[in-house]
Amino acid sequence: MPMAKQEAAPDAVARAVEALTDALGSDAVLTARGDLDEFRDPFWVLGSADHDVSAAVLPGSVAEIQAVVRIANEHRVPLWTVSTGRNYGYGGAAPRVPGSILVNLSRMNRVLEINSELGYAVVEPGVRWFDLCAALEEAGGDWWTSIPDLGWGSVVGNSLEYGRGHTRFGSHAANICGMEVVLPSGELMRTGMGAMSGNRAWHAYPFSYGPSVDGLFMQSSLGIVTQIGWRLMPRPEKYASCWLHFDGDEIIAPVIDAMRQLMLDETINNYPFLGRGVAANAEGQPDLDPDSQKWALRFALYGYAEVVEAKWRIVERVLGSVPGVTIGRKVYDGTDRVGPDRGIHDDRVQAGIPGMELLDLYKVPFGPDTGHLDFSPVGPLVGSEVLKMVRMVRGMYEEFGEPYAAGLMLLPNSIIVVSVMFFDPKDEAKTRAIYDNYDPMLAVMAKEGYGLYRTNIYKMDAVAETFDFNGHALRRFLETLKDAIDPNGVLQPGKQGIWPKVMREWRDS
Amino acid sequence: MPMAKQEAAPDAVARAVEALTDALGSDAVLTARGDLDEFRDPFWVLGSADHDVSAAVLPGSVAEIQAVVRIANEHRVPLWTVSTGRNYGYGGAAPRVPGSILVNLSRMNRVLEINSELGYAVVEPGVRWFDLCAALEEAGGDWWTSIPDLGWGSVVGNSLEYGRGHTRFGSHAANICGMEVVLPSGELMRTGMGAMSGNRAWHAYPFSYGPSVDGLFMQSSLGIVTQIGWRLMPRPEKYASCWLHFDGDEIIAPVIDAMRQLMLDETINNYPFLGRGVAANAEGQPDLDPDSQKWALRFALYGYAEVVEAKWRIVERVLGSVPGVTIGRKVYDGTDRVGPDRGIHDDRVQAGIPGMELLDLYKVPFGPDTGHLDFSPVGPLVGSEVLKMVRMVRGMYEEFGEPYAAGLMLLPNSIIVVSVMFFDPKDEAKTRAIYDNYDPMLAVMAKEGYGLYRTNIYKMDAVAETFDFNGHALRRFLETLKDAIDPNGVLQPGKQGIWPKVMREWRDS
Repeated sequence: MPMAKQEAAPDAVARAVEALTDALGSDAVLTARGDLDEFRDPFWVLGSADHDVSAAVLPGSVAEIQAVVRIANEHRVPLWTVSTGRNYGYGGAAPRVPGSILVNLSRMNRVLEINSELGYAVVEPGVRWFDLCAALEEAGGDWWTSIPDLGWGSVVGNSLEYGRGHTRFGSHAANICGMEVVLPSGELMRTGMGAMSGNRAWHAYPFSYGPSVDGLFMQSSLGIVTQIGWRLMPRPEKYASCWLHFDGDEIIAPVIDAMRQLMLDETINNYPFLGRGVAANAEGQPDLDPDSQKWALRFALYGYAEVVEAKWRIVERVLGSVPGVTIGRKVYDGTDRVGPDRGIHDDRVQAGIPGMELLDLYKVPFGPDTGHLDFSPVGPLVGSEVLKMVRMVRGMYEEFGEPYAAGLMLLPNSIIVVSVMFFDPKDEAKTRAIYDNYDPMLAVMAKEGYGLYRTNIYKMDAVAETFDFNGHALRRFLETLKDAIDPNGVLQPGKQGIWPKVMREWRDS
Repeated sequence: MPMAKQEAAPDAVARAVEALTDALGSDAVLTARGDLDEFRDPFWVLGSADHDVSAAVLPGSVAEIQAVVRIANEHRVPLWTVSTGRNYGYGGAAPRVPGSILVNLSRMNRVLEINSELGYAVVEPGVRWFDLCAALEEAGGDWWTSIPDLGWGSVVGNSLEYGRGHTRFGSHAANICGMEVVLPSGELMRTGMGAMSGNRAWHAYPFSYGPSVDGLFMQSSLGIVTQIGWRLMPRPEKYASCWLHFDGDEIIAPVIDAMRQLMLDETINNYPFLGRGVAANAEGQPDLDPDSQKWALRFALYGYAEVVEAKWRIVERVLGSVPGVTIGRKVYDGTDRVGPDRGIHDDRVQAGIPGMELLDLYKVPFGPDTGHLDFSPVGPLVGSEVLKMVRMVRGMYEEFGEPYAAGLMLLPNSIIVVSVMFFDPKDEAKTRAIYDNYDPMLAVMAKEGYGLYRTNIYKMDAVAETFDFNGHALRRFLETLKDAIDPNGVLQPGKQGIWPKVMREWRDS
């Protein structure tokens, strides 16, 4: 299957840039090559001109976003939107169609509201995890946010990509309650109860009257989300940061089955993480050892002291009875902020305190320029099946001669079996081999019924191909919607393999 | 604003009925007036010809549903789909456009799977709560389902209407994981991971690769859902059915605030219900007394014995400190099925055991033919605001001379303030007055920022009008999607105020 060969027409881009400069001012429009370099895929330095933007625009308001979208329609220029562009491992800020104009929302960085009665924040796309945490601290520290590991990314951006965190509210897409969206037409829309002007439950009740459309804006080319309601977790009286260790893959199966029981019966109600060969050690220093046989599971208990104690006794009974494991915990008061000076990285992550440790870890293999490509199939949370997935993926890594670093994200009924391929982008042959290895891995997993939840811009069509039920019925449905609401195909063409009519003939012919 | 005056063309209907009979057999197509009477709005006996169907078709398979949709397109005949048509109080099985052909899915009544490892069922639209409970019992009773009060309705139908239940998994729309849908074109689509043939996590992982479309099929005219994955709750070791009583509206505020704390910190993790004047008494007999000042809140604790005990002590501390309330509980073993012979109605509802008590209750005011119209605005779960909503609604009932029976459904951050207007459908003037009262109530609540989550077929446009942000941007967006995927406008025209292009000129002109 050929890659899309669409490219933004340079004349049209030039006219659009002029109009954007008129509308937003020259400060908000970047065109110098040097200024645009930071928006390249951070790891694909070899062929990055294939995914270069021709300009970047930094709107500072909803009205400016609307102006950008209208100008793009007028000049038929493709846009590629990022919140802050920290989607490393998935392409960073790089667009699918070369010559696209990047819409970077990092200037829209206001925490619009912290509702300390109902426990939600309203944030713009430029708000980073670091910013939200700081705002919550400043508001008194009564509410915690779920975070991914790294603090520099956008709350909105991560959540719209189905990113995941590690507290009770770690399913970030599900944690959104009420959106505001600029549509490809430039029209402003509010979802859920927000569809009523002045509605009091916009960020408290998660559905619409009539169909609920929020899901349409996840991994999407159907709109630009300008704000979201974001649910917070009340600071618990006690927080137990717990762990379980074992050696050798075969213990995965009984551990997963025991964890499923504890997650389904709500003894454990955060989002646990099971890793091998990838961790920050007790001192917070990176500890990357793909040859290790040692698996480490982390999970958390939150709540009133007596509930956390009662739950720990159940954990001891259920997990403690799995042969070959050791378990432990460290209990914090909710009012003790788990600072860098106390508690290991895992303790902080599950308390909603972001850091940059994971980035350090990811630089270990080949120094500061280390690249990585993530491979992340989803399966059911059943021990035998998770073990099978790990063995399949590990087997392919071994076949390709790559070290296998695994990070499994446990959800109540499913699991995302993330693995990471590290490479040195300066080594062209090796880098190409890594990207080439991805496709056969994809095919092998899809054949067994395991699909990816997310992927790199280079692999979006390949992954879309694996979602093949009834001749790709879901993709055809989404492309019908795309054509209806974005007839000029200006917004994020090719995102997750959804192409506007004007650009998909290459694939469908 | 005029009501829609669309009507199915009798000639086209006749041709479609002939084609349906050829395709599905005469057993599956009903046209005799007597056979069609059961599909009328059960309460609006006065003018019900306005919403009569011209025929009913009962497909028994996905292929038959596809045939129905294709025939409807060929002959340009509107369809109106129900699972079992028990959506009483909201119009029953009656369509918005008179002369529509009813698609009744009650023959598709298979429980396709009970996955006792991961805890989900896969059900067709004809599966009633009674059927699902019986299937779970037969499978060993290890899993409970959330239920609404009444057992005769459809799991799929209730969930797609944002119906609610009373266990941990009582947000029924959110409890769906993976759908199969026949689109208006007749094409079959699977959502989420099901978009990959043979995917192993279809009913375990809730999102798609790319945009998630499941929300589009809620309260919807965009597709016919043919099966859903449905999450189950593991049978708990202990189940405490708890209550709180108080007299007088003003105690609502501190009770709601205390409940919000306990729900946000996950002490209480079911969906509680606060009622006044509407209940089944200890003997399971209906107890309808709108003049009562006594409010009754029910909620549940589930889990291991020591967790339920620890949580009850917290409940005593937090709720017990609200002046003027009395609290209590009854604790069951999870393995004791809470049968009709033991435990009151509330105990059974929160244990996922459906009944028919509520229907009996609703017959008290005017005998077996009592009609009711539900009015159900949504607000934030904040004591002062819930009290304000109750006072507003109650004030309007008093103004209209109607008894006020209230049922408040508590969600973790929001609340649905349901009230019920009872009437005798044989009393035409009174019945008309009840329906006429609805519109000013709607306007008053909308002005304060409270929108309805659901409504009767007669009021769908009126409620849609209140969702007015940016010139009804959400409705216009949904109608753009509607036109794209249902260009002939055959599926549920007018559902929740979404009209196909061919039928909305009356409104937009």
